Amino acid sequence: MDKSRAEAFSDGVLAVATTLLALDLRVEATGRGTLVHQLSQSWPSFVAYVVSFFVIGVIWVNHHAMFALIDRVDRVLLFQNLVLLMFVVTVPFMTSTLADFIPEGGSNARWAVLLYGISNIGMALGFTVMLSRIIHQGLLVNPVPPDVGNRAIRRFGLGTIAYPVATTLGLLWPPLMLIAIGVQNS
Amino acid sequence: MDKSRAEAFSDGVLAVATTLLALDLRVEATGRGTLVHQLSQSWPSFVAYVVSFFVIGVIWVNHHAMFALIDRVDRVLLFQNLVLLMFVVTVPFMTSTLADFIPEGGSNARWAVLLYGISNIGMALGFTVMLSRIIHQGLLVNPVPPDVGNRAIRRFGLGTIAYPVATTLGLLWPPLMLIAIGVQNS
Amino acid sequence: MDKSRAEAFSDGVLAVATTLLALDLRVEATGRGTLVHQLSQSWPSFVAYVVSFFVIGVIWVNHHAMFALIDRVDRVLLFQNLVLLMFVVTVPFMTSTLADFIPEGGSNARWAVLLYGISNIGMALGFTVMLSRIIHQGLLVNPVPPDVGNRAIRRFGLGTIAYPVATTLGLLWPPLMLIAIGVQNS
Amino acid sequence: MDKSRAEAFSDGVLAVATTLLALDLRVEATGRGTLVHQLSQSWPSFVAYVVSFFVIGVIWVNHHAMFALIDRVDRVLLFQNLVLLMFVVTVPFMTSTLADFIPEGGSNARWAVLLYGISNIGMALGFTVMLSRIIHQGLLVNPVPPDVGNRAIRRFGLGTIAYPVATTLGLLWPPLMLIAIGVQNS
Repeated sequence: MDKSRAEAFSDGVLAVATTLLALDLRVEATGRGTLVHQLSQSWPSFVAYVVSFFVIGVIWVNHHAMFALIDRVDRVLLFQNLVLLMFVVTVPFMTSTLADFIPEGGSNARWAVLLYGISNIGMALGFTVMLSRIIHQGLLVNPVPPDVGNRAIRRFGLGTIAYPVATTLGLLWPPLMLIAIGVQNS
Repeated sequence: MDKSRAEAFSDGVLAVATTLLALDLRVEATGRGTLVHQLSQSWPSFVAYVVSFFVIGVIWVNHHAMFALIDRVDRVLLFQNLVLLMFVVTVPFMTSTLADFIPEGGSNARWAVLLYGISNIGMALGFTVMLSRIIHQGLLVNPVPPDVGNRAIRRFGLGTIAYPVATTLGLLWPPLMLIAIGVQNS
Repeated sequence: MDKSRAEAFSDGVLAVATTLLALDLRVEATGRGTLVHQLSQSWPSFVAYVVSFFVIGVIWVNHHAMFALIDRVDRVLLFQNLVLLMFVVTVPFMTSTLADFIPEGGSNARWAVLLYGISNIGMALGFTVMLSRIIHQGLLVNPVPPDVGNRAIRRFGLGTIAYPVATTLGLLWPPLMLIAIGVQNS
Repeated sequence: MDKSRAEAFSDGVLAVATTLLALDLRVEATGRGTLVHQLSQSWPSFVAYVVSFFVIGVIWVNHHAMFALIDRVDRVLLFQNLVLLMFVVTVPFMTSTLADFIPEGGSNARWAVLLYGISNIGMALGFTVMLSRIIHQGLLVNPVPPDVGNRAIRRFGLGTIAYPVATTLGLLWPPLMLIAIGVQNS
């Protein structure tokens, strides 16, 4: 099967998820104090917006780079892609939950960190599974020998350890997670 | 008429409908109890999200597969495609209604099951009608003889019986519907 | 300039506007009565959803047909396209306003009809202006002689009279507008 | 890397951001007075909708024109594009804040003007940075000599001064900002 519609659908989902992030930026004209006050109260929303924008943005850049290497898709890969996108689409919810509960601290904030971590780990695993299928099923434009392929998968898989690490750091002190993911994406 | 814009528009609608599903995932920072409590209360939303994501995802995979076989579109097919998409776009509403009313049980839950069933049956019928037009109007890249075409339509049409069955199961016990549709899509 | 991105952007806007229509379908799990009661109360939302879905759907089909005839776009046409899309994007708001105020009747319902009419007339005029530019600037793949072009524009422009007529009918009895627009699109 | 997916993703983000602008158009069926009264109260929302629609529309036209000149993208340009889109996606929030606080006047309105200005200045700077990378890295279809390129960047950079000027005017009298940006985009 041709890969172009899989790219178009993924671009659509990633673009909408990215844009929905901004729905969590919100102030109200009445009954909540001055605009400056509200903005200073909702700084976690702004930080979370920027971090999550680049989380999804980096997913898009990687998705782009991965699909540039492949020649065609099969039905299994399309479903793996759906699983990846299913995690991506939860990012706005996870982001808004994180931004809402970080100021509270305590176990609420730690649960919010865990949820955000699940999205990120799900996306990282989703990518590794897709990469593995692409390499082992010879869907690449230029197929690679098995050992080269396996090495690429291991290297990529290792990179995904950053997300559980960031999540663990976040369990110690929630804002650390945003910093860790921000650093990693830059 | 060229088929590429019909694909692009459909990809857009499917991508947005998919992403809007996540708008029903929602917790609140204040006055609703701890985050864990809220998450445990809203498990139907999470299950419904995953099931509906794959319902629309499978629609997309099938739409992709169907359009890969056709050579061009005509005005009638474009309108049939709009009818299909009109049902797809109701999925987020049907999903959120189902998730909200399943915990209540009783006749409310059964009505929610019926609504969700209508969306699913509408999409299945929409596909069958489009397949029939594509085969009978010779819009295929490789036209097939009438008997082969009719057999394909009957086989596909039979597959769509799964949706009324899942709906009927759901009327007996609502969660059965999500399980039945989940099994069928996997 | 190449026309493909103008098509992609328009497809995106039309797809999102179409999907946002469904945000107005809404019931609530608590404090508003049974699901059946709520559904029966909000029938105008469902009718308005279907009508508006096909209003935007027909816009898309016509946009598709128009762009299929043109060879390239110029800067002025891109801006005219933006004006058309600006009216399209108001359709979800106009639709939800219409659905909310029709049950009230009286001058509120008539104002809602007028607003909905403005969107529709704006789109019809937007199309006529674009068609005129396309024909007079020779942006067509197969340019036509001036008199043929002018006849096409007049014929199309006459068709757009249906919208003010539907709006006027709506001012007499609001549901008539939805019926008139529904008939015209079918 | 091929530029087509960067265009598709950008088109998606711009289309969604454009359409989300209309979510701020809102009236309520009960308890807020007649429809005419509500519409006359929310004129800033309508003006802000039109202005912001063309702000994003012009971004899209310029993005289109810029990408039409380039031959390929590199990873840095993709990230610069993400930064540009990150500012674009804040426009619906900034617009709705501006529309909500302009009627209040005072320091709230001035802060809203400042926020809106930041979005606009961020987009203008984002464009200048991208143009500079495209010219200096020879990503153009037809590379230009350094002095011609530098002149183009300076000329474009100078044009972006309009945004801080519009913001400053807005700090004096908020509606002036919308007029200044409206004039500049026409």
